[in-house]
This record gives sequence, C-alpha cells and structure tokens, in this order.
Amino acid sequence: MTVRVAVAGASGYAGGELLRLLLSHPEVEVGALTAGGNAGSTLGEHHPNLLPLADRVLAETSVGELSGHDVVFLALPHGHSGAIAAELTDSVVIDCGADHRLNDPADWHHWYGGEHPGTWPYGVPELPGGREKLREATRVAVPGCFPTVSSLAMAPALAAGLVDPDVVVVAMTGTSGAGRALKPHLLSAEVMGSASVYGVGGAHRHTPEMIQNLSAAADESVAVSFTPVLAPMARGILATCSAPLRDDVDARTAHEAYLDAYADEPFVHVLPEGVWPQTSATLGANTVHLQVTVDAEAGRLVAVGAEDNLTKGTAGGALQCMNLALGLTETTGLPTAGVAP
Amino acid sequence: MTVRVAVAGASGYAGGELLRLLLSHPEVEVGALTAGGNAGSTLGEHHPNLLPLADRVLAETSVGELSGHDVVFLALPHGHSGAIAAELTDSVVIDCGADHRLNDPADWHHWYGGEHPGTWPYGVPELPGGREKLREATRVAVPGCFPTVSSLAMAPALAAGLVDPDVVVVAMTGTSGAGRALKPHLLSAEVMGSASVYGVGGAHRHTPEMIQNLSAAADESVAVSFTPVLAPMARGILATCSAPLRDDVDARTAHEAYLDAYADEPFVHVLPEGVWPQTSATLGANTVHLQVTVDAEAGRLVAVGAEDNLTKGTAGGALQCMNLALGLTETTGLPTAGVAP
Amino acid sequence: MTVRVAVAGASGYAGGELLRLLLSHPEVEVGALTAGGNAGSTLGEHHPNLLPLADRVLAETSVGELSGHDVVFLALPHGHSGAIAAELTDSVVIDCGADHRLNDPADWHHWYGGEHPGTWPYGVPELPGGREKLREATRVAVPGCFPTVSSLAMAPALAAGLVDPDVVVVAMTGTSGAGRALKPHLLSAEVMGSASVYGVGGAHRHTPEMIQNLSAAADESVAVSFTPVLAPMARGILATCSAPLRDDVDARTAHEAYLDAYADEPFVHVLPEGVWPQTSATLGANTVHLQVTVDAEAGRLVAVGAEDNLTKGTAGGALQCMNLALGLTETTGLPTAGVAP
Amino acid sequence: MTVRVAVAGASGYAGGELLRLLLSHPEVEVGALTAGGNAGSTLGEHHPNLLPLADRVLAETSVGELSGHDVVFLALPHGHSGAIAAELTDSVVIDCGADHRLNDPADWHHWYGGEHPGTWPYGVPELPGGREKLREATRVAVPGCFPTVSSLAMAPALAAGLVDPDVVVVAMTGTSGAGRALKPHLLSAEVMGSASVYGVGGAHRHTPEMIQNLSAAADESVAVSFTPVLAPMARGILATCSAPLRDDVDARTAHEAYLDAYADEPFVHVLPEGVWPQTSATLGANTVHLQVTVDAEAGRLVAVGAEDNLTKGTAGGALQCMNLALGLTETTGLPTAGVAP
Repeated sequence: MTVRVAVAGASGYAGGELLRLLLSHPEVEVGALTAGGNAGSTLGEHHPNLLPLADRVLAETSVGELSGHDVVFLALPHGHSGAIAAELTDSVVIDCGADHRLNDPADWHHWYGGEHPGTWPYGVPELPGGREKLREATRVAVPGCFPTVSSLAMAPALAAGLVDPDVVVVAMTGTSGAGRALKPHLLSAEVMGSASVYGVGGAHRHTPEMIQNLSAAADESVAVSFTPVLAPMARGILATCSAPLRDDVDARTAHEAYLDAYADEPFVHVLPEGVWPQTSATLGANTVHLQVTVDAEAGRLVAVGAEDNLTKGTAGGALQCMNLALGLTETTGLPTAGVAP
Repeated sequence: MTVRVAVAGASGYAGGELLRLLLSHPEVEVGALTAGGNAGSTLGEHHPNLLPLADRVLAETSVGELSGHDVVFLALPHGHSGAIAAELTDSVVIDCGADHRLNDPADWHHWYGGEHPGTWPYGVPELPGGREKLREATRVAVPGCFPTVSSLAMAPALAAGLVDPDVVVVAMTGTSGAGRALKPHLLSAEVMGSASVYGVGGAHRHTPEMIQNLSAAADESVAVSFTPVLAPMARGILATCSAPLRDDVDARTAHEAYLDAYADEPFVHVLPEGVWPQTSATLGANTVHLQVTVDAEAGRLVAVGAEDNLTKGTAGGALQCMNLALGLTETTGLPTAGVAP
Repeated sequence: MTVRVAVAGASGYAGGELLRLLLSHPEVEVGALTAGGNAGSTLGEHHPNLLPLADRVLAETSVGELSGHDVVFLALPHGHSGAIAAELTDSVVIDCGADHRLNDPADWHHWYGGEHPGTWPYGVPELPGGREKLREATRVAVPGCFPTVSSLAMAPALAAGLVDPDVVVVAMTGTSGAGRALKPHLLSAEVMGSASVYGVGGAHRHTPEMIQNLSAAADESVAVSFTPVLAPMARGILATCSAPLRDDVDARTAHEAYLDAYADEPFVHVLPEGVWPQTSATLGANTVHLQVTVDAEAGRLVAVGAEDNLTKGTAGGALQCMNLALGLTETTGLPTAGVAP
Repeated sequence: MTVRVAVAGASGYAGGELLRLLLSHPEVEVGALTAGGNAGSTLGEHHPNLLPLADRVLAETSVGELSGHDVVFLALPHGHSGAIAAELTDSVVIDCGADHRLNDPADWHHWYGGEHPGTWPYGVPELPGGREKLREATRVAVPGCFPTVSSLAMAPALAAGLVDPDVVVVAMTGTSGAGRALKPHLLSAEVMGSASVYGVGGAHRHTPEMIQNLSAAADESVAVSFTPVLAPMARGILATCSAPLRDDVDARTAHEAYLDAYADEPFVHVLPEGVWPQTSATLGANTVHLQVTVDAEAGRLVAVGAEDNLTKGTAGGALQCMNLALGLTETTGLPTAGVAP
C-alpha cells in the first residue's frame, strides 16, 4: 500500500516535523507541499535538515493543490482549516491546528472568537476511549502540545479516583512550540540562559482542552490551573502536574495505577519507580515518559510527563492518528528511541 | 570604614559569587580565602572570571585562617559551619549553608540527620519582621535559593489572607544551584536541550524552609508542595507558585497587595500589571522580580518570582545581611541592574 | 538476512547512538551489550531515550560475551580494542576508538604511546578510494569525529589542486564529543553560555588523522593547524577550514569541484551556492553538509562542513561501514533527515 | 564631577549595556534616552533588567533631545551618526556604530556605500598608540566587537615580527552581536543546539577594520581571512587567530611578547601559560582574556581571545573611551570580574 500525503503549511515547524517523519514512513509517498507567504520558495530554504526534499518548491495552499491525496495534513493558523477541509471530501484530513478540538461551541467562541468550525475525533489514542474514535476516522483534530502530555499525566489519577478534580499544571516548553513567528521575546539572545512565564492565570488557549480531556477521564468537571513556562531549549515539554490526594493513596498504589493504565501502550511509558522524566529522552520520538508519586505531607499526588512538543505533541501524534485512520499498524514509521544526549 | 572579610569555600560557585560582589563593595577588603580539597591551588584555576584575585592561593579551611576578620562567610557543605563558627567569637559569621536555617530541631533531624546545630537569624530582610532580626546580628543563616524567591512570592498573599494555606510551588533552576559536584546528570551534554525534575513529592530539603517562612507569614500552618525542575541554563530560578483563592479577590487587588508589601524594598520589584518575570532580567543582580494574578476559573492566585540563585538567592542576599549586621547602608555594593540579554 | 550485533561500551554516548541507529536498522538484531564500570546496571539507567532496550542488563565486556555475533562494535577507551579483536576471529569488528586509525606506527607512538595496535581499513567511504577498502572488510577503524568532517571539507580542494597543502581548521564541537567523563570543565554550568578552546597548537590527537587523510587526497604532505572549540551545545561539529588559493580559482569553480566530488554520495551534501551549513540540520542524521567559497582579497579558499559528531561522526559512520562490510545496501537504516529545529 | 550623559538608541542591546554600566559609574548622571521606532515606550519594556530606569520614557532621537549633555553615546544603525554629531558641537560624542571607524574613504564606500562620514579617533586604547588619540578626544569611533578582540589577539605577534602578515581569524559570537533585529535565523529555536557560519569568504564588514588595525600594528599590509560563527549563546566572542610563524619562535617567546605588550593594561589579561580563554570569564566585564602558543609542526602561531561582545566589545569599551576623553581615571565604573558561571 502506498499512501499519498499532502502537507499544507510545510514551511513551519509542525510541517517540517511531519515531513521528517513521513520520509521514514515505509508506506507513504510525499505529494503536494504548500505554504502561505513562503509559497514559491524551496523546502530546503526553510528546512535544511530535510535533505531528500530540499529542492521541492512550495505551492500556494489551496484546495486544488491539496486534493487528490489519500491524506492531507493541515498545519495552518487557526481558523483556516474548516473551509479547506470541507472541499477535501475524498481525503482523510488531519488538522494540526486548534479548529476542531473543542466540543463546546461556546468554549470555542470564548477562546478563539467567531463561529465554531465543528468538532472532529480527538487525536490522543491513549486517553480513555480515544483509540476507538480514531479508527477509520476521516477527520482528526490533533491536540495541542501541552494538552497531550498533561492529559496523559493526570488522566489515570482522575479516572481511578485517586485525586480531587482540581489540577495544577506547570509546564516548561521549548520555544519551537511558539512556531516560527518573528516575535522579540523569541529571539535567541532573549531566550538563552533565561526562563519566563506567559499566559498566566488561565489565559492560555490550551487550558479548555485540558479541562475537556481531564473532565472526560474523571467523569466529572475538573478545574485546571495551567501555567506555561518558556525554557531555553528548542524542543520538549516537561509538565509537572498535581492534585489533592483522596484517602490513603500511597506512592506504590499511584504508580501501579499508572502502569495499569498504560500497560498496552507502545508510546506512553511509565518509568520505573524513582526515575523521573527528562525531555531529552523523548527528543524526536513519538513517546511520552511519565512518573507519579505522592507528597503525603502536602497531601498531593504529583505526576510528571515529558514529550517532544513537535513529535508526540504534534506531528508524531498526527501520524499515529493517520495510521489508525487508515487501518495501518499504529506504530508504523514512528520512532520510540529519542535522540539523546 | 574598611571591613575585612574571609570566605571559606572560595572555590565553589557560592564562594565565587561572594567574591565577585565583594570586589565591588566599596568598604570591603578581601582577606583569607580557604577551601577543602582545592586548598593549595590558586583562585584563578577555579574562577577565571575573578581577575583581580586570580593569583591568590587558597588556604586550608581552619579556624586559624579565618579568625581575625570582621566578617567570615561560610560556603561549606552542611554540618561543617557549627564547629567553626563556635570559635569565631569576634567575627560576624554568615553561613551560606543549611545548618542554622530551621527553627525546629526535629525538622533538622528529619531532613539532615544528627543533632541540630542551632538556629540563627534568617537572612531574608524582606520577609515580615525579617530586617529587624538582622540588624547588628553576629550570626546569619543565609536561606536556600528556592525558599528566598518562593517565600517572597507567596508571603504577601498569605499575610493578607488572600489564599488558603495550601501552596504549590514549581520552580525551574539553573544548574549552578547544584554546585560544582561532578555528577553525571549535571554534565553539559545531559542538561543542554533538556528539562528534568528531581526531589519530587516533597523530597527536597528546601521544603521545610518554605513551610517555616510561609507559616510565619500566614500566622498559621501552611502546606507546601514543592517540585524543583532542572532547566538548561547556568543561573536563575523561576518560581511559579499558586494557592486556592479566598473570597472574591481579583487580579487588581492581589497586585496592589504585592505593591504594598514591597513598596519600600530596594531589591524586590513587583512588575507592572501584565508583565511577567524572566530570570535573565535578574542575572547577577540582587533582585527578585515578582508578578501576581488570579485565575478566577480555576480559583487560584498565581504568583511568579524570578531571581539569580547565586546572587539574591545566595551571595547577594548574604552581603545584604552583612550590610545590615554591620550597620552599613543595606544596598551598598549590591547591583540592581541584571546582565541581559 | 538478520545480522546479530554486539556493542561493547554500550553505556557511553557512542554506544548509545549506535543502539539508537541499530534499533531502526531493518536487518539487525541487537545481541550482547557490555560495559566496563557500568556492568550490572540496566541500559535504561544510562540511556533513558532507548526505550525498547531499557531493561537490558549490561554484561562485563569480555571476549566471551562478545563472541558469536556477526558484527561487534567496540566503543572502548583507546588501547583496549586490539586484544579483544584478536579473539573475535569470526566476527566483523568495527572499532569506534582510535587504535587502528593511523598508518604510521611512529605517529601512534607519538600521539598515544606504546606499541601500535595495527592499521585497519579507515571508515570514511567518501574519501578518495575509501569505499573500496571497506567492502567486505572484516575490520574497520571508525575515524574521529573531527577528521571525518574536516577531511571531507578539504579533500576536494586538495585533490583538485585548488589550494596549497597548508590547511587551517577551526572546529566547534558539542560537548558529547568529550564523552561521559566527569570533568569539571564539562559541567553544564561551565559550558552553557560559554565558548572555550582546548588542545591548541597542534595538541589534539585528531590532528595526525587529518594530516593522513588530507595528504592522501593531495598526494603530497599537507600541514594542518587544528584548533578545537567547545561550544555550548550537546551535539554537532562545525568545521571552518581554509588554505591558500592557487592560481585564479573563483568561487564558482570551487563549488563545482565540490559538487563533482560528492555528486554520487548519499550522505555528503554540497549546499546550493550562498547557503552555509548549520549543525542542527544534521542532528541525528548520517550526513555532512558542505559549502565552499574563495576569499579573493585574503587569497584563501574557505570550506565549511557540519555533521553530528555522534552520528556521521561516529555511530552512523560506523553503521555505514557495517553495511559496506556485509554487502548490504550502504544507506540501509541511516537517516538523512536531521532533527531540527 | 558629575557627567551628564545621553544615550541614543537606548532600546537596543548596545544601548541597554551602556545603561547598565552607566548606572554603576560613580560620576555619571543619566540624561536623555532616545529611540527610533520604540520612542514613546518605557525603557522597562525593552530592558526589564534595568530596574532603576524602568519607568523612563524613550524620546524620539533628535538633536534637540540629545543636546545639552556632556557626553552623547550614539547606538544607531550605520549612516545615522554623522548628521547628528555635526550639531552636537558642545558634547563629547561617542559613536558605537561603524560610521567613523575606517580611515580610507574608498574602504567605506566599498563596504557601506555612499560618502564617507569621516574618521574619528578609534576606541581601542590598548592598540599601539591607541590611548594617546583618545585622551581629551571630543569624538570617538567605538570599534566593532570582532575587531576589538581579534586585533588585540594578533597585534603583539605582528608588532614583534613573530609572524607573516597573513592572518586567519575564526570567531564564535553570541547572538546579541546581531542586535535585536527580527530575523528568522536568530529565532531561539534555530539557534539553540546549533552552530552556523555567515559572511564567509571575506564578506563581513568587520574585515576592513581588522586589516586596518593589524596593518598599523605590523607597519605593513596585513591580509585577514575572517570567518564569523554564530554560537548558541547570548553573549561572548571567542576569536581563534593564527598566522605563519617566522624564524624560530617558540611558545615561551610568544607568551612573553604578549605579557610585555599588555603588562600595564588593566583590561587585557594574558593568561598563565597553558590556560586558555573561555567567554564566560569575561561576561559583563570590560576585559579581554588572551593566550598564545605556537604549533611548530604546522608552522603557525595561534592566539585566542575572549571578550563579551556587548561589554569590552561595545559598551564597556565605549565607557573606557569616555573616561579617557574626559580625563577621568580610565578604569572608573568598569568591572573586571566577569559574571560566571
């Protein structure tokens, strides 16, 4: 089987990571590559790492360019995927943007403005009930990078009733998560040697996505206080999550609940007790590394997750969904060994 | 006035930062410099940045070498300062180690083992009642780097009754905070490009210090869940702190409480509303930058503080205490402008 | 065909990178993993990124453990491979160390001391005549990381007679090149935010290897002034090389000579004119990116090469040689797309 | 004496570093702060590290704002300082830009285009004859960051006739050297973990400045092949310089020539034999650290210099010149201890 794939938004970081992974997917042939402002330039100008595709010229993103592929990945600014997807009736469309992630139109309106473009199957197979919705899906909403790892880090505790539905997430991210926008605070001289926060006080758009995922896992409404931290690294998210402990849960019990929850998962790895995640171990891999313990004195369960924001957090997760949607082996073409040190 | 100062532990990072600051203190003359295993080598071998002292040879740490100075700074492994200080009866002794920080001997025994070496005045002038104890003190316990910024970040909210006494602190630190120990996880190839956690679940020894400070500020027992994160930078701590909101506190009220609390402080700066701390702005300076807001949806107050762990977090804070102890102007010789970008 | 492979020195950085690549090589089965001081621990303790092998216990390096494999990779300190290889008569042995790289016993004695362990086929297929010696070889000396990229960067200019045989190489390296040794100058707090030099004045052991390679390419004796620079990054080498121009060589001519030299090479990529290498484009890939120009005013040809020191510079190059030695397709299992940003 | 100082271009990196240093200069009062596009904003928005000046509003750069000060520092894009300086007849004007550095109008036209704005005294007191021209100067051309350290690194060897006039310079720089321009290759995700070259083949505008300085030192025409390398750090330049050895110069002779050349210099430090420069040791300090040796085999003298591009390389050097111009003690207000680690 050869799957013909198009990527819209190929000059950005998500697009580049999609192509890096697609190049080593044994059943994929890379078709159209499109861009917005960068149309007309070669892929090599934007992604000198993608040697085999360096001379490919980027077309203008349009339905015409994208149609005729088995799968179309959209890596576009929010608000752009709905109209395009509506025309791509014969393709599986996998949207790396935010447009189709939220269930509640009111949430969408509150966080993004305008009319809700509709909800698509949510691309985290490892969440409770997640995989079923993705098998043979024709539309997939790839989750945000923070919600993927944070939801996987807290879902087992909430699902097992180990904690109250009142979660605090503080997550460090590499700056590729902000994309390639030319913003002063993303200049290298500003970032290197420095840590900073942004979107504090519940202002980050990934917050409603976490609430949605964790409330589903808990089967009750979950509050999430989320603070993103910009760390001086290019890739990686380290999410430190906690919630008030219920009853007499000890560290061993918590760890076992997590081992159980992800026992059959090829990409979510609960580390041995006492070993804590580091983002470098997941670099370039489609993995999430997790650990959990309890702080008996403070009365909280603490779970920590690491992922590569561009791989499992975006492009790798998207390919995993493609595999599910097409009925391929879910793990095909997806690395589990990170590039470290 | 010329203050003659000795530094024990001069070859480590805290010792080096003390000397960098002492070199530009107008009333200080640098006297004896001592070390443990590095005795006999020159200071320049360990601190090539300290040009004016590069040829000074490090003596073996001993009472004999250290006595006869107006002020002795101890930057030693814990458990070593008590015996030395007992003999330095004529000097002001300022201990950058942990030995004399905790009030409760049981806490000491639990966290460090052995017999409690006694409590000294605690070196954060900006905490409620902190400055008075330090004026003309002859012994000072310099706080841990995490407790300084975390306590300053949450004390106003607790003192003003804005939050419940149930605090979550997640703090990123540069790796100089771990000192110069040759440990595999501190190797540059491991750290660069990666974030990791350690001491999770209430296992870090700075936890009881935060509890002590914040309970004093709140005038009730405060729970603290503390998670330290190792970030790929040499210096700097960014502490993200939160607690459940009481009543109808809004962001403006919280911000004003913080402005009030630190209105007269030369080194603690509450940023304009909407501006959030970044560690680079405090690099090499004796400052803490703070911001606070509320997350109404999640029902939490979120306060974030930044400092340089080696400056305000250790050596700068120690010099500030020296100034107070000696009756000098508190700000003498202490930079407020950070080295950025 | 299934190739059974052992790795000696599996807990180090070269060993880890070998395993990362071997895991995605379609014809390889990973056999014995051995170590020195780390024998008895699991691979996961040293390489948390290598999820699929995390539970493998490291055996003590010995002929007994290593024998019975089709291929044995040795990633050992220099001086250790000769004795082991002598006993592994039935295996292809690929030595990532320095023991068998130098042709001249006197050179070996001068640079490493002791008796020369003998010369093996040198593992850079892309050097003139390099590939032939490696086909069906049973012993391979993997080159040093600096010589690989530096030799590839200057060989075409010397072979084509564009320059005098008097080369200056200044090469930045990530700190993984120094291995996992616990040395103070490799601590993260020392390295981050800083650049430094070492081995200046012809003192680095990779110098004779460059001289050997470039003299062979030039067919005359070539002088090499080599200065390595430690850069604040985990991986990557950027080699800036130059030599005095002969005659009236212009930039276009030089570029064409390089295009010609590497026209058929899958892993050595001469960039389009005006585009210069960056190490991130080669991260985790088995590639060298090259560019060349002339500085007419200064009368020098300047060539710059980038590689990942652990991939093409060590482990990837080693696998490429394995493929050649076994008669497999040379590119099997070797990524050409780097992990960036 | 109180010197009233204005800074034009205060929102950029050079302007920020000038202000950081001016704040701790005991005889300076900071007057007008001006900017181009950032006029109307507060200094704190651009330099959150400059706490004491955070609320100062930036005026539009104009002669009116800048006149009436004892000293005016210009940190403007090239081509802008001539017209402004012409009107500031009563002030000492110190230009951090390139306009007045080159002696030869033809050089200026070749490298910058247009008519030459005239040559001012060149701001490196430590070059042969440099200090005399700066005493009581009313106009000063602050050198480029690369030429300062590279010229100081090679001048003694050329002046003493130890080498042929044919110099190769490869210099790593932190990205603050590129200023605050929003360019894609300066984004943090591109820079972190990567090294790259630019301006290869004699294309960098600092080349003629090096030629000018080194030719003056050698008293003959010197060729310079210069390659700048962008390193993943915010600050610092490490310049690796070499030239063909004359006669029988050995390492000891070379080292002594350097010790002699800078024996009386407070800011240029020749390290003890065998110790090599690292940029972190100069961070935030007005120092250059140097070392030199010979590579007898390759027949070259190799000298390496480190500086902070923003401090000794720009703003610190500028203040040193101000001190000389005003007849103040040359070292006033200038740190010699770097901020490390």
